[in-house]
Amino acid sequence: MRSPPAPPVTTAAAARAQIRAGAHIGPTSGLAPGYAQANLVVLPGEYAFDFLRFCVRNPVPCPVLEVTDTGSPRPATLADDADLRTDLPRYRVLRDGICVDEPTDISPYWSADMVAFLLGCSFTFDWALTAAGVPLAHQEQGVNVPMYITDRECAAAGPFHGPLVVSMRPLPRDIVEAAIDITARFPAMHGRPVHVGEPSALGISNLDAPDFGDPVGVGAGTVPVFWACGVTPQVVAQRARPSLAIFHAPGHMFVTDHPHGHYDSASREQITDQQGGHP
Amino acid sequence: MRSPPAPPVTTAAAARAQIRAGAHIGPTSGLAPGYAQANLVVLPGEYAFDFLRFCVRNPVPCPVLEVTDTGSPRPATLADDADLRTDLPRYRVLRDGICVDEPTDISPYWSADMVAFLLGCSFTFDWALTAAGVPLAHQEQGVNVPMYITDRECAAAGPFHGPLVVSMRPLPRDIVEAAIDITARFPAMHGRPVHVGEPSALGISNLDAPDFGDPVGVGAGTVPVFWACGVTPQVVAQRARPSLAIFHAPGHMFVTDHPHGHYDSASREQITDQQGGHP
Repeated sequence: MRSPPAPPVTTAAAARAQIRAGAHIGPTSGLAPGYAQANLVVLPGEYAFDFLRFCVRNPVPCPVLEVTDTGSPRPATLADDADLRTDLPRYRVLRDGICVDEPTDISPYWSADMVAFLLGCSFTFDWALTAAGVPLAHQEQGVNVPMYITDRECAAAGPFHGPLVVSMRPLPRDIVEAAIDITARFPAMHGRPVHVGEPSALGISNLDAPDFGDPVGVGAGTVPVFWACGVTPQVVAQRARPSLAIFHAPGHMFVTDHPHGHYDSASREQITDQQGGHP
Repeated sequence: MRSPPAPPVTTAAAARAQIRAGAHIGPTSGLAPGYAQANLVVLPGEYAFDFLRFCVRNPVPCPVLEVTDTGSPRPATLADDADLRTDLPRYRVLRDGICVDEPTDISPYWSADMVAFLLGCSFTFDWALTAAGVPLAHQEQGVNVPMYITDRECAAAGPFHGPLVVSMRPLPRDIVEAAIDITARFPAMHGRPVHVGEPSALGISNLDAPDFGDPVGVGAGTVPVFWACGVTPQVVAQRARPSLAIFHAPGHMFVTDHPHGHYDSASREQITDQQGGHP
């Protein structure tokens, strides 16, 4: 049950410094391996409380890891010395729901009124699945995980409403139970699947035509397994057509100082014992 | 791993109806057995976003199950047809941090500006521990669980800051590992313990003098185990001295429509399969 030793936290800080300096401008997959990455949503203050309410009402697709103080680009708990205006490799800027820019620095768009949200990302449970020997088709094929808009409606909050978006991983049937148990240990990273099997039960008509990401084949003997996806809050925030909204560009995430194991509810790492160590 | 069958949801609604009618005015322990209960915090709108930020930054003591729309006393997801102004048996009303009333109905204090928060409560993991045969001293002795203010500081948000409060259950040493695993399955109900063993590691000088609740003996062969406690957000909200704050009276909680198993991250209950049932 003991987690593997955590990599040095300097790895995550170094990755952010590289990004900030413009030395890394690509996707963050594989960067600072061992560290949790997070989805970014930035909104003006007038939308922030309703958006946070939306996330609290839909914790499976929208697990909130961090909310900044209004006007502060610095996460309070997820990283030391990070600046969310410069520490992601690429952003998407939307005005009234329309993408108007894809910059590598959002300082020109920042104001004293902005609030940033960092949300859990499935990279962490993909890491745990891979560590347990579960084969992941999208990784083997070197493509993005396929994502689908479902016919399940999220619980609304103020102007924020919309459908649940899911990601899909085809798994050998005899591995499904183990994959459920592994991902259930990461409730802040979408947790266990929402559905196993027939895509039409989620209103998905064609697995070969994902709404986001890339198609992966569902081979003989494998079953499609669907998890709630962090694209949900992006779709919902975009549909609300706020005057301004900023997201990470797809695959260009925020690297946190927390090793994946920090989010493992079965880990002993955060329990101190009488010596101040771990039981 | 399959959870026991859930009791009928009418049980929870009937309990709330009894409370609303004034037919039940005592503590809610043992009421609507099988259903999760929740801590209540009500604050004026000007404090609400900062308080929610505080909870997000301190999810172990302050797991948010629900935030109402501003001005609405009706939970959006935790219960049908509930009214938080009347459906708890007793409340505590504070002005500027001082308790001024302990009514059974807070309608006179409600306004279009109020926001209610429902927070996870350890009743759910006590239920899971008891179901697994773990002996709970406070239940055997018929007293409230002892709670202690620690020297660990929560992450602050706006005017909200203060110490972590913990509850303590003495357990036979050979049961501690099992109790950790059971409570870890309920991350929205405080999850795994924060500390096992020596109270002084948390700045607690005398287990016989809890800050809240009642003392229970720590017998030979047992070890004190400490979990984050839902009194934390109450202490922090009181210390911020808001113009108005309303809490549930100790032990007089909100009964939700969700069976305890709803919050069990290891449960299969919320995963549908291709037949729309459970895998």
